Amino acid sequence: MPSRAIQDYYPDDVAHCYGCGKLNENGYKIQTVWDGDETVTRFTPKEYHTAIPGFVYGGLIASLIDCHGTGTAALASYRAEGRELDTQPPFRFVTASLHVDYIKPTPLGVELELRGKVLERKGRKVISEISVSAAGEITARGKVIAVQMPDTFLNIASVHT
Amino acid sequence: MPSRAIQDYYPDDVAHCYGCGKLNENGYKIQTVWDGDETVTRFTPKEYHTAIPGFVYGGLIASLIDCHGTGTAALASYRAEGRELDTQPPFRFVTASLHVDYIKPTPLGVELELRGKVLERKGRKVISEISVSAAGEITARGKVIAVQMPDTFLNIASVHT
Repeated sequence: MPSRAIQDYYPDDVAHCYGCGKLNENGYKIQTVWDGDETVTRFTPKEYHTAIPGFVYGGLIASLIDCHGTGTAALASYRAEGRELDTQPPFRFVTASLHVDYIKPTPLGVELELRGKVLERKGRKVISEISVSAAGEITARGKVIAVQMPDTFLNIASVHT
Repeated sequence: MPSRAIQDYYPDDVAHCYGCGKLNENGYKIQTVWDGDETVTRFTPKEYHTAIPGFVYGGLIASLIDCHGTGTAALASYRAEGRELDTQPPFRFVTASLHVDYIKPTPLGVELELRGKVLERKGRKVISEISVSAAGEITARGKVIAVQMPDTFLNIASVHT
C-alpha cells in the first residue's frame, strides 16, 4: 500500500526540512495524513525538548504546527484537484506566516496529536488552523498561511543540494 | 564583569528550556542582552537547520523569536523596576502567543541577529516585536506576548527536576 503521508511525496530536492524532510537525518521527519476532513500528525517529543521541566518547549510546538500547516496545504491541494499524491507536478508549500496561541502547558512524555483543518484555499495560498493535543486535551492552537513554493526555489534548491 | 544576558539569571529550576536554558545541554542556549533600547540575540544555525537547502528552517526562526521574546520581557521588567539582573525575586516569562511573518528566505551559513522592542508592558504581560536579520537584511518579523510565569510553575518545576 502506498504511503499516505504527504512528506513521502515531497521531491528530493526539497525534502531536507528539519521539521518534515524525509532526507534530514537530524530532523523531526513528521508525517501528515488525512483523517476524514482533517489532517493528522503524531509526534512524541524527546525528553530534552523542555520548556520548563515536565513540559514541551513552545518552539517545538511552533515547529510542528509550521510543518503540519505546509503539509496540510499540499494534501488539500491534491484533494481539491482530485489528484493522487504520486502524480505530477508536486505540490510543495512554504510558510508565509505562523501564529500560535499557547493555551496551557503541554506535558512532556506523551505523544502529541496535531489536527488541521483547511480554512481557505485561494490561488497559491492555503490557510489552515491546527490544534495540538496531549493526552486528549488541547494545549495549543495555531494558524498557518502557506504559499506554494515558487518554481525558482526548486532551481535554487538544486544548486545547493 | 557580570553577565549581561538575561538567561544567565534564570533560576536553575527553570533554566532547562530547549531554546534558552543554560542547563539544557541539547538546546540552543541563546543569550539576550540590551543594546540601547533594543534587545539583541545572535545565533548561527547548524547546517542541518534546513528549510529548503540553503535556507534556515522556519521552525527554528520561530523558536528563536519565542525565546528572544520571553528574554526581552524579563529584561524589560528589571529595567522598568530599576533593578539589576541579579536581584530577587527573578523575572521569568512564558509565551502566551507567538506570531511570525516570514518575509523572505533566511540564508543558512551566516549569523542571525534578532532585535526586540517592547511594545507594551502591563501587569504580568509584556508584548514585544522582534526582527530577524541575516547578512544585514530583515528576513522575518515576529510578535510575542509573554506572561510572567505563575509561582506555581516554579513548584511544579521543582517536582520534575
